[in-house]
Amino acid sequence: MMIIFKIYSHTTQLNMVRYHLSKTDVEDLVVGAAILGTGGGGDPYIGKLMVIQELERGRRIEIVSIDEADGDAFIVPVAAMGTPVVLMEKIPSGKEALYSLRLLEGYFNRRVDFISPIEAGGVNSTIPLVVGAERGLPVIDADGMGRAFPELQMVTFHIYGIKATPMAISDERGNAAILDTVDNYWAERIARAITVKYGGSAWIAIYPTFGKLYRDAAIKGSISLAIEVGKALREAKLAGRNPVDALLDVTHGFELFKGKIIDVQRFNIGGFARGEAVIEGLDEYKGSRLMIRFQNENLVAIKDNEVVASVPDLITVLDSESGKPITTERLRYGLRVLVISMPCNEKWRTSKGLETVGPRYFGYDIDYVPIEVRVKRVVKP
Amino acid sequence: MMIIFKIYSHTTQLNMVRYHLSKTDVEDLVVGAAILGTGGGGDPYIGKLMVIQELERGRRIEIVSIDEADGDAFIVPVAAMGTPVVLMEKIPSGKEALYSLRLLEGYFNRRVDFISPIEAGGVNSTIPLVVGAERGLPVIDADGMGRAFPELQMVTFHIYGIKATPMAISDERGNAAILDTVDNYWAERIARAITVKYGGSAWIAIYPTFGKLYRDAAIKGSISLAIEVGKALREAKLAGRNPVDALLDVTHGFELFKGKIIDVQRFNIGGFARGEAVIEGLDEYKGSRLMIRFQNENLVAIKDNEVVASVPDLITVLDSESGKPITTERLRYGLRVLVISMPCNEKWRTSKGLETVGPRYFGYDIDYVPIEVRVKRVVKP
Repeated sequence: MMIIFKIYSHTTQLNMVRYHLSKTDVEDLVVGAAILGTGGGGDPYIGKLMVIQELERGRRIEIVSIDEADGDAFIVPVAAMGTPVVLMEKIPSGKEALYSLRLLEGYFNRRVDFISPIEAGGVNSTIPLVVGAERGLPVIDADGMGRAFPELQMVTFHIYGIKATPMAISDERGNAAILDTVDNYWAERIARAITVKYGGSAWIAIYPTFGKLYRDAAIKGSISLAIEVGKALREAKLAGRNPVDALLDVTHGFELFKGKIIDVQRFNIGGFARGEAVIEGLDEYKGSRLMIRFQNENLVAIKDNEVVASVPDLITVLDSESGKPITTERLRYGLRVLVISMPCNEKWRTSKGLETVGPRYFGYDIDYVPIEVRVKRVVKP
Repeated sequence: MMIIFKIYSHTTQLNMVRYHLSKTDVEDLVVGAAILGTGGGGDPYIGKLMVIQELERGRRIEIVSIDEADGDAFIVPVAAMGTPVVLMEKIPSGKEALYSLRLLEGYFNRRVDFISPIEAGGVNSTIPLVVGAERGLPVIDADGMGRAFPELQMVTFHIYGIKATPMAISDERGNAAILDTVDNYWAERIARAITVKYGGSAWIAIYPTFGKLYRDAAIKGSISLAIEVGKALREAKLAGRNPVDALLDVTHGFELFKGKIIDVQRFNIGGFARGEAVIEGLDEYKGSRLMIRFQNENLVAIKDNEVVASVPDLITVLDSESGKPITTERLRYGLRVLVISMPCNEKWRTSKGLETVGPRYFGYDIDYVPIEVRVKRVVKP
């Protein structure tokens, strides 16, 4: 019989070795992952549907600590790629990524030992769980971002020198490709072009690697952190406490702004959901405006012409009533929102990290200032 | 010692079983293939450079009759894909396609027995020869078009039910992909998107198949026909006869028009060189204009608002002095040209053939009329 340990705190990482997800864990996970997904990574409701189906079919979803992976364990992250809004139109089962995983196993002629998430997000946190459940493979409590980012090379695996390819990329029709590229930027370029041709979304198995490399490169405890975040929100509501305060506590985050969305511009270009949202201040923020620019994920928050938060730190828009995260594809005129920012994992704050996902990579000619430094200078009204 | 047989006539197909190409054969081949390439398939001069290099290094290029391939022989066509003009800017060695071939062999875990051309053309007739020379593999005297066409599914292999995938597609940098698609139109779509990202040209190994299927589906004697066409042109010139007459004799073709190019429009869209050329009539064509529309290859010829030739029949533009073919990327203002049309292989004149490459597929709302029928009705002034 499997002994089920409980997760207590992400700061101590995992207090468990092997753990099976309950339905409540899944509910917490998708909410927490969508908050860490900074507007991207897909819709939490769709993500929840995928996993609950698996549990209701009697399948178990096993989460394991990164320490469970031996040095030569074969680990493959799986994910959806593309514009999240496409997934709202053709709701996936989550099993689509299985095909890419199998192709990659065929290419390597080796069975995968562990599944890994690549990023946090309503859908991209749950696809690995569905694939793990279907294949009877454990999912490692770690990922390559500790948040979500729009491009394939934007993972800590990349900054630790792991190759994105050989990668497999398939669609729900049965089209598939195995890519082998000279670098990870080429993997992004080619996979993005294929994703666009597939109709805007694709299913990938990518950054195949071994335990030894993965353990250094991955961001540990991503799944348990997402569960913890979702749980904090849920428990605060049950106890009648302010859910946002509970959320900021657990993520070490900051409130950036509160207001009403008065404009959303979006345009799907080159396989990304790009755009911006303008929020008019309410309460203590009255008279100010906050603009958020996004490329699948929220990239920068600009308050009255001053940058108040930027990648790689996390910027998340919450429903100001419920504290629930609003992904970029759900932003719309009239929503009352609260905008928060949370510090990113320290791996992103290195020079190679900032080169890969800092504001300049995204075309903003500003220096990165950690949110905890910035917030003291400019945020509070 | 290898006994070298000579090719006498394409109508009898091959009067030889195994044959090694001489330099003169190569010179004839590239000219003939460019004529059969109907404006596409790449520049004959570049094609010639590739093969002559191989011969000068002492490598032998062995052409074999289709009958040499056993039923279970593993046959893979290799080619360049993309806009031919890109190949003029970064001149290839022809060996680039070797990488795609090797990837496909790795994917099948089986060595290729025979190389095949996929189409006729200055470059696409010669790449298989270079790959064959480098790998010491014979090249089958057949192809999938008997001419050139712009899209991957436009091959007789397709109309005989052979799948384009698994196919390999690589670039000169070392990027590569193996594609497996639900049908051949999807193979075209995905491979084209990759080709565009590669910078406009790619190297493919495609339509992997076995002797039994290939023998029914292929167009036999394509290489020997190209040599024969080139030879007819060369010998006519040496003998002081009209080279175009010799050419029309050997291809059963017709003269369509003679004149001076007064306008060329071209635009690279979606990975194709599209455009049109307008020719003002000279001599007996004075007072008329011929417009040729192309998509890598010449598709239709319209004389004074009347269609005078269309796909799948061949339309080729020749230099009116030398009789040498002018590929679409070389069309330019002021050139004096002769336009000819030649009947296509009978496989293209079936209903499945016309569905695949008839004028309607290319967006022209006209019925296909075989050139030998059309020419009696409208061509002669």
